[in-house]
Amino acid sequence: MHFKTEIPAARDKLLFTPGPLTTSQTVKQAMLRDAGSWHSDFNALVAGLRSRLLSVAGLTSEQGWEAILMQGSGTFGVESVFQTCVPPDGRVVVLANGAYGERMAQMLKHARIAHHVLRSAEDAPADAAALEEYLAGDPAVTHVAVVHCETTTGLLNPIESVGRVAKRFGKIYVVDAMSSFGGMPIDISACGIDFLVSSSNKCIEGVPGFSFVLCRRDLLLVSEGRARSLSLDLLGQLKGFEKDGKFRYTPPTHVILAFDQALRELELEGGVPARHQRYRRNHETLLAGMARLGFRPYLNPSLQSPIITAFLHPPNGRFDFGRFYTELSQRGFLIYPGKLTQVDTFRIANIGRLFPADMEQLVAAIESVLAQMSHE
Amino acid sequence: MHFKTEIPAARDKLLFTPGPLTTSQTVKQAMLRDAGSWHSDFNALVAGLRSRLLSVAGLTSEQGWEAILMQGSGTFGVESVFQTCVPPDGRVVVLANGAYGERMAQMLKHARIAHHVLRSAEDAPADAAALEEYLAGDPAVTHVAVVHCETTTGLLNPIESVGRVAKRFGKIYVVDAMSSFGGMPIDISACGIDFLVSSSNKCIEGVPGFSFVLCRRDLLLVSEGRARSLSLDLLGQLKGFEKDGKFRYTPPTHVILAFDQALRELELEGGVPARHQRYRRNHETLLAGMARLGFRPYLNPSLQSPIITAFLHPPNGRFDFGRFYTELSQRGFLIYPGKLTQVDTFRIANIGRLFPADMEQLVAAIESVLAQMSHE
Repeated sequence: MHFKTEIPAARDKLLFTPGPLTTSQTVKQAMLRDAGSWHSDFNALVAGLRSRLLSVAGLTSEQGWEAILMQGSGTFGVESVFQTCVPPDGRVVVLANGAYGERMAQMLKHARIAHHVLRSAEDAPADAAALEEYLAGDPAVTHVAVVHCETTTGLLNPIESVGRVAKRFGKIYVVDAMSSFGGMPIDISACGIDFLVSSSNKCIEGVPGFSFVLCRRDLLLVSEGRARSLSLDLLGQLKGFEKDGKFRYTPPTHVILAFDQALRELELEGGVPARHQRYRRNHETLLAGMARLGFRPYLNPSLQSPIITAFLHPPNGRFDFGRFYTELSQRGFLIYPGKLTQVDTFRIANIGRLFPADMEQLVAAIESVLAQMSHE
Repeated sequence: MHFKTEIPAARDKLLFTPGPLTTSQTVKQAMLRDAGSWHSDFNALVAGLRSRLLSVAGLTSEQGWEAILMQGSGTFGVESVFQTCVPPDGRVVVLANGAYGERMAQMLKHARIAHHVLRSAEDAPADAAALEEYLAGDPAVTHVAVVHCETTTGLLNPIESVGRVAKRFGKIYVVDAMSSFGGMPIDISACGIDFLVSSSNKCIEGVPGFSFVLCRRDLLLVSEGRARSLSLDLLGQLKGFEKDGKFRYTPPTHVILAFDQALRELELEGGVPARHQRYRRNHETLLAGMARLGFRPYLNPSLQSPIITAFLHPPNGRFDFGRFYTELSQRGFLIYPGKLTQVDTFRIANIGRLFPADMEQLVAAIESVLAQMSHE
């Protein structure tokens, strides 16, 4: 097995995946220490992270915002919002146009929370007009939820126009910004977002192990007694931090040390605007190279995020993705399979510790794999 | 802040805590790689971990057992059992004599699962006779749950006698073996355990980030449709592994690479019997040294685990624990505060990458701190 060889057979593969992703060596080296999870040094570090996460979002605690870390993956973070905040008679509208929107519906189903799913096609944006029509006819709705960057396709949903409708009807607005937060500017106030969820291993470029929720403190405090899960009780988690600075339950200490370093490297790079620029350059380099090789993106460019791109299989009908993936992997490049049911695609992400030169090397490797496959 | 100095002011502190604990350098170094969470190499590694965890417990999949990893801390793992497996009309009896037994009751309360708590004093073992009496009078009970090593005090509960009662009444038996599994032999068959939960950062000596559940496959399969949480759906997690070898949702890849190395080091040490011997020697060294300094353990020796020990504050009434803790921390030793409400204690764990010589150094540091404090 690859990870078992004492002397690796090759350098680590570069990950062109939407997270877990390739992180810097210094981020990983921050994990070479054992921190006491109850010690004041560690608690101070966590308090600092929470406040710096608000800064990344352009928010402050004085304006009534909280940043709350939650153990587990991003899915655990999104679910913690629903499990904690939706009242027993609440009702959630989910706008879905991909696997991550559908996942929110699955969470609500498991938690026996009333909900309605407004679906759009996978290549079409979430429909603010349809939301408006629906909300006008269903006053029982309490929450509206949508995914920002739907990594199923790489589509960027219009969170600002959706948010304007949600706010006009006085609904609480939940945005899954898992793969976009930190990698592109999000104007939380203009969008009217009340709860935003992301995770450690996306555009902040940390390693996986926890998610975080940025939310309005008043909306969380009114959730007292609602949580249907102890582990996923977001209000309980906040109270733990406020009582004595500690996580209620064991935090992934090493992952948190890595995140601290990752946030520092985001700051050193020039913050979100600079990181967004790098990702845009990565994305443009990728698109230009893939176009030269004859690959077409699945989405209309106006909907495309600078995070991850779905490409159509070549039209000749003889494209063997499994072979393509394996050959690229053997050359040290991991790409992502497609996740669409109707159309054959594969996906390439351009976030993480990647630069335009890495995108060019990937394209060159793809060219060589295609040449090899066509000569067999 | 301690972790922010580029050149640390001192070596890392040794953690005399019940996890997160001090791990080997090689375990931490295993995290210096970025693994693709969808790649076959990583999936094969996870499959290997699951099968090796069964081996550590003396179980096999042929006998109908599964080992399922769950993101988050140990609490998430215990809760995943209840959230997934207790039927809507189920009822759980929890035997509690400390904070971790009470936590199971809290989980059940949050999940709106019917339950009854059988409490014993914090210095008394879980009471199998009381369970027998209770079960005779309440046939609606479906599950019995208890903590093996209650780290509130270090007490080792009699999981075998409790299990015999549970099985005689045909109940499903859930054991939280968080801080004992891997560090002492557990005869799962003799105890009649159906679900055993532990975590990555205890006696296997990995880093924190996930828990794992060893369980009888048939009892999990009958839970179809019961899960009240998507993230904590233990059956869903198993189905994900069986469908394509992958975690349903992002796993803590680096933590898992560290765990793979930690399991290898457990095997190299000689497995559970050898590790148990080391922990026993650590514990005996600690007790002898502390006795020499006049400290008395809180528990009767017959109830004491070789994992963590609660010591009474010295009887002179002028013991300043905050000062004691800080002085020890400054010397590079982190101990644990007490968690009892009625009696003043502090706790010292002896698990993790610690050896008798470390216990002696801790005792010497305690002696020097006491001398300093008594001269002021």
